[in-house]
Amino acid sequence: MLEGFLIGHADDQKGGTGVTVLLAKQDAVGGVSVRGASPATRETDLLRSENTVERINAVVLSGGSAYGLEAACGVAEFLKEKGLGYDTGKLRVPIVCGASIYDLEYKSFCYPDKEMGKAACLAAAPLEDGGGMMGAGAGATVGKLLGMKCAAKSGIGIASIRRGKLEVAAVVVVNAFGNVYEPDSKHFVRGCKIGFKAIDIEDALAALERVSINYTNTTIGCILTNAKLSKADANRLADATHDAYSRCIRPVHTRYDGDAIFVMADGDVEANAVALHTLAVKAMSQAILNAVSL
Amino acid sequence: MLEGFLIGHADDQKGGTGVTVLLAKQDAVGGVSVRGASPATRETDLLRSENTVERINAVVLSGGSAYGLEAACGVAEFLKEKGLGYDTGKLRVPIVCGASIYDLEYKSFCYPDKEMGKAACLAAAPLEDGGGMMGAGAGATVGKLLGMKCAAKSGIGIASIRRGKLEVAAVVVVNAFGNVYEPDSKHFVRGCKIGFKAIDIEDALAALERVSINYTNTTIGCILTNAKLSKADANRLADATHDAYSRCIRPVHTRYDGDAIFVMADGDVEANAVALHTLAVKAMSQAILNAVSL
Repeated sequence: MLEGFLIGHADDQKGGTGVTVLLAKQDAVGGVSVRGASPATRETDLLRSENTVERINAVVLSGGSAYGLEAACGVAEFLKEKGLGYDTGKLRVPIVCGASIYDLEYKSFCYPDKEMGKAACLAAAPLEDGGGMMGAGAGATVGKLLGMKCAAKSGIGIASIRRGKLEVAAVVVVNAFGNVYEPDSKHFVRGCKIGFKAIDIEDALAALERVSINYTNTTIGCILTNAKLSKADANRLADATHDAYSRCIRPVHTRYDGDAIFVMADGDVEANAVALHTLAVKAMSQAILNAVSL
Repeated sequence: MLEGFLIGHADDQKGGTGVTVLLAKQDAVGGVSVRGASPATRETDLLRSENTVERINAVVLSGGSAYGLEAACGVAEFLKEKGLGYDTGKLRVPIVCGASIYDLEYKSFCYPDKEMGKAACLAAAPLEDGGGMMGAGAGATVGKLLGMKCAAKSGIGIASIRRGKLEVAAVVVVNAFGNVYEPDSKHFVRGCKIGFKAIDIEDALAALERVSINYTNTTIGCILTNAKLSKADANRLADATHDAYSRCIRPVHTRYDGDAIFVMADGDVEANAVALHTLAVKAMSQAILNAVSL
């Protein structure tokens, strides 16, 4: 499955933080869509359709909020040693895109550093479906509508779909302000431990108008595929895959989330854009469920 | 309800097209989020958070694809006669934002022109919840996965919510490639007349990879509110309200949709951003259902 990619985790379970690295064995066409209002990201500007660099080497999902972006620097050094990166003529610059979740208040103040980023690279292995509290999922929590005291533990989820030659995998770290529900269902799966379990969370929130809600949350993910995509295709796919967030997490894309989705596409499989989009939404929905099945 | 706004419809039921105008009695803070890949819009660049103009006079939802953007020119002339518009120093320029659906193949080739835009302004009246085939809904169809022959008629929907002093209304023209389902449910409401009614439409689509899908579709809408919003707030609210599209329409935000949502906010009611977002998603979900309850 998706032989051009590897996934590696490293974490500090005692401190409650970690990092997950998605490595292209060589490189991959990249894209991103940031749709939350409070993101912590790096190397997303270069992913704009009109900008120059098309292929990236890695996507780093990490804990530690903006501090955790440091882990990507360790990934860049690892890739440099491998001789990978964008060819500037005289040397190569690894293109490492990333986003971080806010887990600083989960156990203790700590964040993934350069060494942890390198450690995740050294642990890299082929993708397998599943989920747990490893890597960037170490410090993730979900359903923070009433703050950390009522939040439930969540983690990282991985899910893949194969359709003929086309392969699509989703990786996601669920650290959402909202709760997780089964897609297209009113069935509560995981989130805020008291109240607000029903789909009518929307009514409850409307009643909470005067409550100050300022905890920091984020759902960050990545779609990996062997489809043949242009950079613009990858950006469009990243944006469309947010439908999975909308369908599984309520509320989502709020002021207090930094919701982002990356895409890496390394193959030459021709795929209808709508079909690919639907498979990506499906894989991402399953990955979200896997991330909270602890 | 939302006394600062009026809605006016004009249409050509025989030709199968029309226009709906949302007028601020004076002006309103504007925002927009375009998330389909095939939009037909006007005056959306000025709505970017960093650009100068903050207040707009009208949002025009029309049929006729890009031709139908002409209707907004009639709205601008109507507003000029009223003495409304952005004050440039020596004169006023009405700020009329708009988006159009593709209905050129519904009955005959025709589109809303300047006169029809003016007629919609003259018909403007207070908002009332409901739906039908009037205005921009005249030529709307839904569930065009297998083309127009299998599509169902749809229209325009209006739905509002009041919570204390806060008022939120949604207006939407559903002309989607996908089908409409009840929100957070697998219950098919309206769309493609043969097959593809189940939620597993996603599987069906994935199997259709080699089918050329190039019909033109779009769901365009607007949120009206008396909340106190900055322009950046309005843009954020427009983007977040796409969650309603994700939850009620499958698939949505495709290559073949031009999905867009505008916001007009004219009031001074303080509202928590998440509460407002949840109310907007709720109103928009109901408006989508109203648009297909024919």
